[in-house]
Amino acid sequence: MMEQDVERKIIGILKVLSSSTEPVGANIIARELHRRGIVLDGRTVRYHLKIMDERGLTKKEGREGRLITQKGLSELEEALVSDRVGLIITQIESLSYQVTFNPWRKEGKVILNTSLIKKDKFKEALSIIKRVLKSRIGMSSLVICRREGERIGDLVIPKGEVGLGTVCSITVNGVLLKEGIPVEAKFGGIVQVSDFVPQRFTELVTYSGSSLDPLEIFMKSGITSVLKAAKTGSGKVLANFREIPAVAWEQAEEIFERLKEVEIIKIIAISKPGQLILGVSPGVDKMGIAVMGGLNPLVAVEEAGIRTQSKAISTIVDFKELVSIEEVE
Amino acid sequence: MMEQDVERKIIGILKVLSSSTEPVGANIIARELHRRGIVLDGRTVRYHLKIMDERGLTKKEGREGRLITQKGLSELEEALVSDRVGLIITQIESLSYQVTFNPWRKEGKVILNTSLIKKDKFKEALSIIKRVLKSRIGMSSLVICRREGERIGDLVIPKGEVGLGTVCSITVNGVLLKEGIPVEAKFGGIVQVSDFVPQRFTELVTYSGSSLDPLEIFMKSGITSVLKAAKTGSGKVLANFREIPAVAWEQAEEIFERLKEVEIIKIIAISKPGQLILGVSPGVDKMGIAVMGGLNPLVAVEEAGIRTQSKAISTIVDFKELVSIEEVE
Repeated sequence: MMEQDVERKIIGILKVLSSSTEPVGANIIARELHRRGIVLDGRTVRYHLKIMDERGLTKKEGREGRLITQKGLSELEEALVSDRVGLIITQIESLSYQVTFNPWRKEGKVILNTSLIKKDKFKEALSIIKRVLKSRIGMSSLVICRREGERIGDLVIPKGEVGLGTVCSITVNGVLLKEGIPVEAKFGGIVQVSDFVPQRFTELVTYSGSSLDPLEIFMKSGITSVLKAAKTGSGKVLANFREIPAVAWEQAEEIFERLKEVEIIKIIAISKPGQLILGVSPGVDKMGIAVMGGLNPLVAVEEAGIRTQSKAISTIVDFKELVSIEEVE
Repeated sequence: MMEQDVERKIIGILKVLSSSTEPVGANIIARELHRRGIVLDGRTVRYHLKIMDERGLTKKEGREGRLITQKGLSELEEALVSDRVGLIITQIESLSYQVTFNPWRKEGKVILNTSLIKKDKFKEALSIIKRVLKSRIGMSSLVICRREGERIGDLVIPKGEVGLGTVCSITVNGVLLKEGIPVEAKFGGIVQVSDFVPQRFTELVTYSGSSLDPLEIFMKSGITSVLKAAKTGSGKVLANFREIPAVAWEQAEEIFERLKEVEIIKIIAISKPGQLILGVSPGVDKMGIAVMGGLNPLVAVEEAGIRTQSKAISTIVDFKELVSIEEVE
């Protein structure tokens, strides 16, 4: 038990270090850990760091800064899975909490998916992305594009890559939450679209039962046909599903209208009380809301045989950093 | 509600027809439906079939036989997802129930995964499969191999393909159940292996929260390295996890020993009470059991760039139909 406790602290420290490209000192680490609910003083952090240096998980840089090593990154990746199951739902909740976007004032922070695409493939990928975002299958065409060495939120674009961020549909959860509506992220899955209209979910994986984002899993499953959907109006695309108390429907619909006006979302499917929505029946006194996955254009890129490194629900950026896909070249 | 009820019956009939290559009459359909818990007489089935013919889901063949059409197959595939969520756990339970394998008498039925491989790729695929099954990463080397037109359980091998069945690790659940031990299938995921020893789960998806078998999803995820694990002893492979009451441990261990002797399983990881097993903590008074996925050799084939059509927990065959992979050419 004791040992597990130490292991969690070490994983906590590795998490802090992994989200920075600069060396980080013990006091800053302690502050960051505090934000994540782990209370350690700078001195204790220093003690753990020394052991972590010895294990090769971290290395000293400058006076007392630390960087995470390759070994530290692997360790973090393979952290106790008992810590990780349900992690994706925890990540959704902590990122939703950090959303401050106000659709009326058009300011504040939104959640992005991020993708890295090899520089020499980017032109081809971009034309596919534009094609999908201009079609009527309904994802936000607001994006953020960054070159090597630049950042999207806490992601630094590596050498030889182009970074593209798309609006993550979980942003909707954050906006609802900020308006005081409790939201439960239920699942991600595949939706059959016909004539550009979403018909029903055909596959799904629940957020609470997965260590990975279901949309990330489905992205490479080979059962999508986003490109075909964008071209012909019929195909299988990524979408996710959330529930809110049915009593909040009026306020929620106002919010959705506004989110459409500012182009954070395009197509949204909302259940009427007691009715199925896209073949799914919401819980008792709940209202179900399905939104197209922001990763869909990147799925189309993968379908065309171009590899991307894509991460759903990846980071937080300011709304004013977003531009229309048209402006990206 | 009425409509949904009819829809379920139609889906039931389509399921029966889809598992046969010959035309099936209304009375046989009624009997099959009964086995699946849907009680309809032949006359009512005939009534539904007439409507289904009109909708193009089925077609008449011979005096009163019916075949499923392409449209019927698509309809079945996209059946109400509310019917399908959790379907994979239902499928595990109904196939587990049908397992009659007795490891002492070495007879009875086991569960198979099935894969279809293009004829011209089969030789290359087979050498990879042999390599993986001969390595020490631990899957059963008992298989069943069938040519076009032949069958593996209820799967008919299509023209131009070779069919390969591998022992599905869910067979273990069935054997435990037949010995009177209640089993709960928990999740499928990825296990990190080092020096041919399973270390811990790094990703997982629960059976109760997925419409697809998690191992099928992970198979194409690009995060496995089965071939590397077979060659070097280190890599990421598929495995799944189940729980039984801790009080049954003695009987269970005897069963596992015997299952190893008859080569239905090779490597199995079992938790001690109150301890983690491969980084996962079992429920209170439960014992956790992890088994390598029977699909791993096929994952290695996919990693080598050869496409397969693989289905986990696919069908039931008699143990005596299985042969050692060595005998397959």
